[in-house]
Amino acid sequence: MADADWFRTSIMARQGVAGGVPGRRHELTDAVQAGTYHYVYGPYAEPVLEIDPGDVVSVETVDAFEGKLKTEQDRPSEKLKMPFLNPQSGPIRVTGAEKGDVLAVHIHAIAPRGPQPRGTTALVPEFGGLTGTTATALLNAPLPERVKKVNVDENGVYWSDRITLPYEPFLGTIGVSPEIEAITSLQPDYYGGNMDLPDVAPGAIIYLPVHHAGAFLYLGDGHAIQGDGELCGVAIEQATTTTLHVDLIKGLDIAWPRLETKDFYMAIGSARPLEDAARIAYRELVRWAAADFGFDTMDAYMLLTQCGKARLGNMVDPKYTVGASVAKWIMHQGGDQASPAQ
Amino acid sequence: MADADWFRTSIMARQGVAGGVPGRRHELTDAVQAGTYHYVYGPYAEPVLEIDPGDVVSVETVDAFEGKLKTEQDRPSEKLKMPFLNPQSGPIRVTGAEKGDVLAVHIHAIAPRGPQPRGTTALVPEFGGLTGTTATALLNAPLPERVKKVNVDENGVYWSDRITLPYEPFLGTIGVSPEIEAITSLQPDYYGGNMDLPDVAPGAIIYLPVHHAGAFLYLGDGHAIQGDGELCGVAIEQATTTTLHVDLIKGLDIAWPRLETKDFYMAIGSARPLEDAARIAYRELVRWAAADFGFDTMDAYMLLTQCGKARLGNMVDPKYTVGASVAKWIMHQGGDQASPAQ
Amino acid sequence: MADADWFRTSIMARQGVAGGVPGRRHELTDAVQAGTYHYVYGPYAEPVLEIDPGDVVSVETVDAFEGKLKTEQDRPSEKLKMPFLNPQSGPIRVTGAEKGDVLAVHIHAIAPRGPQPRGTTALVPEFGGLTGTTATALLNAPLPERVKKVNVDENGVYWSDRITLPYEPFLGTIGVSPEIEAITSLQPDYYGGNMDLPDVAPGAIIYLPVHHAGAFLYLGDGHAIQGDGELCGVAIEQATTTTLHVDLIKGLDIAWPRLETKDFYMAIGSARPLEDAARIAYRELVRWAAADFGFDTMDAYMLLTQCGKARLGNMVDPKYTVGASVAKWIMHQGGDQASPAQ
Amino acid sequence: MADADWFRTSIMARQGVAGGVPGRRHELTDAVQAGTYHYVYGPYAEPVLEIDPGDVVSVETVDAFEGKLKTEQDRPSEKLKMPFLNPQSGPIRVTGAEKGDVLAVHIHAIAPRGPQPRGTTALVPEFGGLTGTTATALLNAPLPERVKKVNVDENGVYWSDRITLPYEPFLGTIGVSPEIEAITSLQPDYYGGNMDLPDVAPGAIIYLPVHHAGAFLYLGDGHAIQGDGELCGVAIEQATTTTLHVDLIKGLDIAWPRLETKDFYMAIGSARPLEDAARIAYRELVRWAAADFGFDTMDAYMLLTQCGKARLGNMVDPKYTVGASVAKWIMHQGGDQASPAQ
Repeated sequence: MADADWFRTSIMARQGVAGGVPGRRHELTDAVQAGTYHYVYGPYAEPVLEIDPGDVVSVETVDAFEGKLKTEQDRPSEKLKMPFLNPQSGPIRVTGAEKGDVLAVHIHAIAPRGPQPRGTTALVPEFGGLTGTTATALLNAPLPERVKKVNVDENGVYWSDRITLPYEPFLGTIGVSPEIEAITSLQPDYYGGNMDLPDVAPGAIIYLPVHHAGAFLYLGDGHAIQGDGELCGVAIEQATTTTLHVDLIKGLDIAWPRLETKDFYMAIGSARPLEDAARIAYRELVRWAAADFGFDTMDAYMLLTQCGKARLGNMVDPKYTVGASVAKWIMHQGGDQASPAQ
Repeated sequence: MADADWFRTSIMARQGVAGGVPGRRHELTDAVQAGTYHYVYGPYAEPVLEIDPGDVVSVETVDAFEGKLKTEQDRPSEKLKMPFLNPQSGPIRVTGAEKGDVLAVHIHAIAPRGPQPRGTTALVPEFGGLTGTTATALLNAPLPERVKKVNVDENGVYWSDRITLPYEPFLGTIGVSPEIEAITSLQPDYYGGNMDLPDVAPGAIIYLPVHHAGAFLYLGDGHAIQGDGELCGVAIEQATTTTLHVDLIKGLDIAWPRLETKDFYMAIGSARPLEDAARIAYRELVRWAAADFGFDTMDAYMLLTQCGKARLGNMVDPKYTVGASVAKWIMHQGGDQASPAQ
Repeated sequence: MADADWFRTSIMARQGVAGGVPGRRHELTDAVQAGTYHYVYGPYAEPVLEIDPGDVVSVETVDAFEGKLKTEQDRPSEKLKMPFLNPQSGPIRVTGAEKGDVLAVHIHAIAPRGPQPRGTTALVPEFGGLTGTTATALLNAPLPERVKKVNVDENGVYWSDRITLPYEPFLGTIGVSPEIEAITSLQPDYYGGNMDLPDVAPGAIIYLPVHHAGAFLYLGDGHAIQGDGELCGVAIEQATTTTLHVDLIKGLDIAWPRLETKDFYMAIGSARPLEDAARIAYRELVRWAAADFGFDTMDAYMLLTQCGKARLGNMVDPKYTVGASVAKWIMHQGGDQASPAQ
Repeated sequence: MADADWFRTSIMARQGVAGGVPGRRHELTDAVQAGTYHYVYGPYAEPVLEIDPGDVVSVETVDAFEGKLKTEQDRPSEKLKMPFLNPQSGPIRVTGAEKGDVLAVHIHAIAPRGPQPRGTTALVPEFGGLTGTTATALLNAPLPERVKKVNVDENGVYWSDRITLPYEPFLGTIGVSPEIEAITSLQPDYYGGNMDLPDVAPGAIIYLPVHHAGAFLYLGDGHAIQGDGELCGVAIEQATTTTLHVDLIKGLDIAWPRLETKDFYMAIGSARPLEDAARIAYRELVRWAAADFGFDTMDAYMLLTQCGKARLGNMVDPKYTVGASVAKWIMHQGGDQASPAQ
């Protein structure tokens, strides 16, 4: 089944206000956004663009360091200034979106942009998975600071003379506004945010629960590639041109972001400790199976025990992220059948 | 590269005392083991078999419930009795193994055995990933008890009329004895044990750090298939005939189990909370890259951030398990230094 | 040493802009605040009052349920509506406060107010220390809902015919605004917030790091008494008249709230998992000992191992809270170096 | 009420086989134990002494380092050898103790012994509350090693010229054998072990659930004083002469250790993460209130929210320990009363 074919069967295409049919096309360029990047996910910012359900938006995002780490001689502790990290494009207002709806975002493309070396990774003091942090507060000396610049194009990430990694781009951060909170764009949570989940990639549809009128879609933090967990806290960060197709599902009650691809359904949870992120993700997947596919809750719990997949998004952000998924064909069987073993 | 070919380049084949060449063949049948299954990993049991490095052993394991859950009417709370759960075959004494060595175990095959329905899964009170437990001690009413029996053969796991899952067998529990401790076979730890990691499957080699003279290899807890995290705590449990090729690497200092397949190297960590399991696994992988493949430690940390994979073994046992892995071809490039391991 | 005497030696009295001398007196009554309670700690609200360093403010706070749980027949799931919980009075703007300063708040009195039964505690679905929650996401049935109303006056909390608990009031929630975030008043964090720490009581001084011009002091969530950890998530909630003496310390760099009483110094940390809250609190106490009292860092670490005290604030909020404290007389001895702070 | 008076009303005196009446007196000296200290809690050791319920035993314990850290020039990494740490005296067999019983141990006295400086604390690599460890596995450089020797007598702990801390002795480690496990004496768990809880002090009674015939009481790890959490992992370690009065309660079902003093009842939990230790402790306290004092479970949960106390034992061992307690007078009121507020 080609990508276009499965999309017609997707939740977005079947339940979206615009029926998954692309509408007008918008450009949200650097020039439009410049000087107004956002460092919180919240309702207090002015929308930079308003779109209708079905519209397609091309967004020029800047990298997580707003381009401030230009050379390997730059020191993160001098160039970066909390809380002004992980700049987000947006917010994009979606006409008609209300609390209780779901924003569906089909990611069409994520292209790298800007002069080489476009890719940046770094060791930032007191941040990362294998170091003491501001939360796992220890007395050990911090790790050394480091900046590494790498060339990136759509054919690869040129780590070293010997190692070329594939270009596997995704959005580290995407989400909508909380109802009354404004939360650092470093954090992932029930509205999306800094999930750093590699599945949020071209071809996938992400579903985000709306809490504020107009939804207020934010995005940024493009990654050229990232391993599970984003171990040191910094993927191959890059500026991007990201193309999104946005639709709106009215009155769909989901508590956490969900994701759909050609092959699987995924529920996404973010929390500390990490097991709570996994619990959230898997409970949402169980509830999804029960609410939409006819499974008994305990049956779904037992079945997912055998065939659920867990993807570690990040183990470094203010909350950690896990995606729990299951093959669509399994979900589609539903649960109301006799058990052959009895 | 065929399975046989890559095996000749494996750490086991290159560093094992027997050079990865199969030696004598042993049968550890139910009849030999019967009545002496073990519920702890420890040095206080009598070996049931002694083998030389290189020997191949065929082991008849019983399922995690020792076959006591025979029908869907059985109640776990009546049939199961702590701490006599997860019965282990062995211990197998390996001649010449000493503290500071590593046992290498190449898994040749895991075949289901016994009358149908051979497969068992269950909801056990106060056990599982989405329920209060004896550790996450809550006042909520427990989930209902359940037993589900399923037919299993090498072609599939027959969950229901509509759903046949693939037969993807592995050992939920395998390891060697601690030096002086004897720890419940429900727990995974630095010596292996109940990791419930689906990568411990036919074709893989697992490396286990020896702490006790003779190593004392235990195994059991065969699974016909399991999802990431073993969500409800019980995979498709089955009795097996498991064939293992065992070798010994002298004087190799590893702190936690490691695993090798045709395609990747994996380090395995077990701890609570779950992020500590991930930290252990990834730190061991970083250290492996530095010790054996010529990487600078910080380079390895930054590179694995981009290409490391994390597998959630279990999120239900007394310690949770994560395997962190990286493609062999990447590891083999080494860092900026020359790569000694090729 | 009488309360008035030790206060003259406090950090607030010695370092405050107003030297700990009470200035003008303000009333922030219900009538002034009414209709504008806040459910986030953030910079986006309009100050309801502006004061000078040294000023004394009497604040009428409402209870954490905004008085909506009036009888034991009320159901929390019907009366309460997320995220409009834990209403805060304020924000109070403090003239001259800037990022990098510290607000010092001496709590003079917390008196109960309103008609009897004034005190309310409750079991709220998916909230509390011994139940599955929205983060520790489980499939168990929720606990029953409950509301319990109790009479409260300054002589006691009249739990039942047999049990009268002492009136030991404190502010469950107090803090200043983050720089750009607006965070639910249910959460404690680096700026204070919903710490639910019984030491934040009359007689104590709390020190809060300023992040926003004018500081923006919020407070609410008066408790008539509470045990360590606020086990079920709801203390004896009460409306209060709270009297605060506020001063400003310029250019004092602290990362987390601190507290001073006649007898001890305390550093306060909030995080998940709970050990991270304890790590933050103790690391801040170690750093305090080193920065202000002449201790070598490792000496302070070893000494606090012997004489540090830990108070569990809450184990139920979005972050858990621990206060780590040490007797003042010990801190004042300094390390082997001279002690500059006396 | 004098100590002797309250003891006559204790659970031990009321329910013990010997009725709390002291029986024969035994001496378990260094000479008797020498060369056979134990580093695991388990059933595989030979009892060094057998006593009857009611007997009093005076035990000479060695310090947690078995006296190997003699001067401040000793390096822990050279002198200490895992897993041979925290040597335990015993096991003491108690006649008639069976699985399902409870051992009651009234601590009469803990006197320091050995030549000055008797007290030892230390920084041990990868161990402690504010450092990366073998479980919280990080890449940061370890903290420096340190040994500090201090004079200790029954009047004080002579930390420095300026600081004399009180002598507040307790047993860091005490417990009985698991049924089939043998677990490092560094770990606290359901059978007791290395709880590092300062309440296990002279005057207190500790109740330990028996799992093995004869109970097999172990003890060691005397502390001259310790702060909450045992921050750096090493209290003021000392050799002791400890006097214990031991009794046996038949057929009492408790899941975790409990403790009684003149003033309060305490339940003790050990787990990671730390919130799970707190959950265990508080759930056991709720269950105790319901089982023995007539409280409705939800009433007890709500009441302990207002008046429960939590003591942080350790935040450094393989499991962390929390004691949850409540004043006896409150527990003794029971729960079956009308609520005056209705």
